[in-house]
Amino acid sequence: MGPASVLPWPGMPNAILCITGSELTRGETRDANGPFLATRLSELGVRVDEVALVPDDPALLAAAVRRAVERAEVVVLSGGLGPTADDHTVRVLAEVFGRGIHRHPEAEARMRARALARGYTDETIPANFYKQAEVIEGAEALLNPVGLAPGMVIPTARGLLAVLPGVPREMQPMFRDLVVPAIRKRLALEPPRILRAKVLGMGESWCEARVQRLGIDFARAEYGISAKPGELVVKFIAHRREDHGYLDEVRRLLEGEFGQDIHVLPEGLTDASGAPLDVEHSAIVHALLLASGITLSTAESCTGGMISKCLTDHAGSSAYFLGSVVAYHDAVKERLLGVPRELLERHGAVSAEVCEAMARGARRAFGSRLALAATGIAGPGGATAEKPVGLVYIGLAAEGPGGEEAAVDRSLFVGAREMVRHAATVRALDLLRRRLAPR
Amino acid sequence: MGPASVLPWPGMPNAILCITGSELTRGETRDANGPFLATRLSELGVRVDEVALVPDDPALLAAAVRRAVERAEVVVLSGGLGPTADDHTVRVLAEVFGRGIHRHPEAEARMRARALARGYTDETIPANFYKQAEVIEGAEALLNPVGLAPGMVIPTARGLLAVLPGVPREMQPMFRDLVVPAIRKRLALEPPRILRAKVLGMGESWCEARVQRLGIDFARAEYGISAKPGELVVKFIAHRREDHGYLDEVRRLLEGEFGQDIHVLPEGLTDASGAPLDVEHSAIVHALLLASGITLSTAESCTGGMISKCLTDHAGSSAYFLGSVVAYHDAVKERLLGVPRELLERHGAVSAEVCEAMARGARRAFGSRLALAATGIAGPGGATAEKPVGLVYIGLAAEGPGGEEAAVDRSLFVGAREMVRHAATVRALDLLRRRLAPR
Repeated sequence: MGPASVLPWPGMPNAILCITGSELTRGETRDANGPFLATRLSELGVRVDEVALVPDDPALLAAAVRRAVERAEVVVLSGGLGPTADDHTVRVLAEVFGRGIHRHPEAEARMRARALARGYTDETIPANFYKQAEVIEGAEALLNPVGLAPGMVIPTARGLLAVLPGVPREMQPMFRDLVVPAIRKRLALEPPRILRAKVLGMGESWCEARVQRLGIDFARAEYGISAKPGELVVKFIAHRREDHGYLDEVRRLLEGEFGQDIHVLPEGLTDASGAPLDVEHSAIVHALLLASGITLSTAESCTGGMISKCLTDHAGSSAYFLGSVVAYHDAVKERLLGVPRELLERHGAVSAEVCEAMARGARRAFGSRLALAATGIAGPGGATAEKPVGLVYIGLAAEGPGGEEAAVDRSLFVGAREMVRHAATVRALDLLRRRLAPR
Repeated sequence: MGPASVLPWPGMPNAILCITGSELTRGETRDANGPFLATRLSELGVRVDEVALVPDDPALLAAAVRRAVERAEVVVLSGGLGPTADDHTVRVLAEVFGRGIHRHPEAEARMRARALARGYTDETIPANFYKQAEVIEGAEALLNPVGLAPGMVIPTARGLLAVLPGVPREMQPMFRDLVVPAIRKRLALEPPRILRAKVLGMGESWCEARVQRLGIDFARAEYGISAKPGELVVKFIAHRREDHGYLDEVRRLLEGEFGQDIHVLPEGLTDASGAPLDVEHSAIVHALLLASGITLSTAESCTGGMISKCLTDHAGSSAYFLGSVVAYHDAVKERLLGVPRELLERHGAVSAEVCEAMARGARRAFGSRLALAATGIAGPGGATAEKPVGLVYIGLAAEGPGGEEAAVDRSLFVGAREMVRHAATVRALDLLRRRLAPR
């Protein structure tokens, strides 16, 4: 976790998020809105003080909204705007703010048009249908570009309350296009500058200790670190305009310290939802492979196809990816990859020798310029006295000036089966990255 | 979403969850503890009134804990038990409950032993190391079987407060083994009976309409439905002992209605975390394959190794899984799977004919009794006038009495690239299920 505390700079506004839906508090559905909004707000320079998941219960929702509006400048409420008996948001807001409810004329007109287009008539439209067009008096209505129910922005004593649909693909563009400008205007906020970088091949406490030694002023650049299997993401946010340039110095310090172990992510690039560009390691390597014009294949054992799956997650991967052999048995390593039997007998499937042979065999089988191989012990079974769970060899074979060259990397990952496979996959992708983007 | 509302039965206890960590409220990390705890508590018969994500801020955390303890019988607090300056939980609890802090002797001894084993000495152990052994007076300490920091159970006026580490693989077994019995005891709770089933091959609103028509009494069996790509999970919870037997009637109605489209999950079986047995479709098929004694290989194109990856997620899959060829180019389909070139030229790679040839080719290459093949258009590119994004053929080739037999299934999935690949993978696994577990 980051340094001593998030030092809120003077005047930093705060937010509370209320995400409503009983399917969330029963654990049936994982909430996607909280993380999305928390990230976007943090990057706006708003400190999130709480993300509350609340059931479809008017009393609990009203109490949560009242509490939030007292405690925070920005309150975002998502969910409960649908047509069913479980959707209480508009009535709760009418009660909390002491306002009347009316149908928004434009929302109502769009809904009526959609129903008529589907073959309904004014007589057959269900009784509760127009509930979704309801807003409270005094709210600015936010038209919903994807769904039916409008959102709202309601000024509060401390700032504002934004009300949005619960469905992520409706909520996200409305937040990005309609709520963010309202927040910026109401709070006179400047957009921050954000520097993000991945750190590869080391554990979190080691990375943390090295970052802390660089003499970075965390009051000027708010620091956070998060970990996924096999990788870390460090993030620095300069909230004040006068500190934006300081991030160039921070970048220089990081790159000087970490060298090839760090990969700085592009700034300011966002996807369709307004989120920063995907940080999946496979996305980074995908871009490098596309640019390289090189072809690639994989030979996998313990990763079971995960390296292949991660690369092909990305549209356009067929430009470089030829395919994979998942050789889950020694006989298959022999037959499909040409690994010599006596190598398997002498060293075992989990060895640098067999790993190299697998990589060279994939190059032969697919005719690719590069080939990755992975063999290891994902666990929980399979360990021996000399070879523990988490031992993974990653091999890279490449066409070189003097013929084919190969190198094998040995790792020892600590964790359960899924973590070992995932970390091995990231390690394999990262060896490609280091080869394709040298410094 | 389920029927009109969760009708809390008289005496149903409630819970509030406080999950702490600034990486959560900044949106850097997605919370896994809230959904896990919400599901487990709901299945215990405890109604979750709120899931609150709170930053690493002592004042905010203290306020959240105070508020939760006033409002709920069960409060679970996770996170903030580590050694860094950001970890405030023990101090906050000491303040909220007005208690002293001391190091738990057994936790301290285990930590010291671990440090010495890593080459530290009493002189070189960092100053903050033993912070993780701290607990407050009057708490029952819960030893951590995986990590270092103990948890706590603290009786409150209304019930209890359970304090757990934030790391899921530490928190989950502690919750299952130590906190659940404490909750049952303190609240005199009867465990509910839970019926879960997967519904395959149809959309949510269609399944919902069919369930609603069966005349099930939802006041006796609380109903929920959740959707993942290509599959649905329906859940019925009988909270009251006198309703436990009613779930047999519910099961009879569901199986009568859905036939092979439904797969009832085993009751009462939990995994290492205390969660009901994994509902990943690959887990169901893994068990069927293990029991069948049959060997399997896959030939994948659009799924890119995902089918192979999902099967090998499961320890012991090497008992039946021989391997996979990911053939991402036509030339690879020809060379490694023996798909005739003129078939590719006449019908294209995304066709029933090529799909069947891929499946047969995998059987030949691996010598397996069964082989699955998948070819399709994951998108967003690749569609033609006749072949839209989401078109996927799944083939199954098998050794039969009269020689090799093959069948091809055609699906049209609606969604983005990841959803199409995921739903295609589930469909492929489900065709195996239907073959191996006929009714």
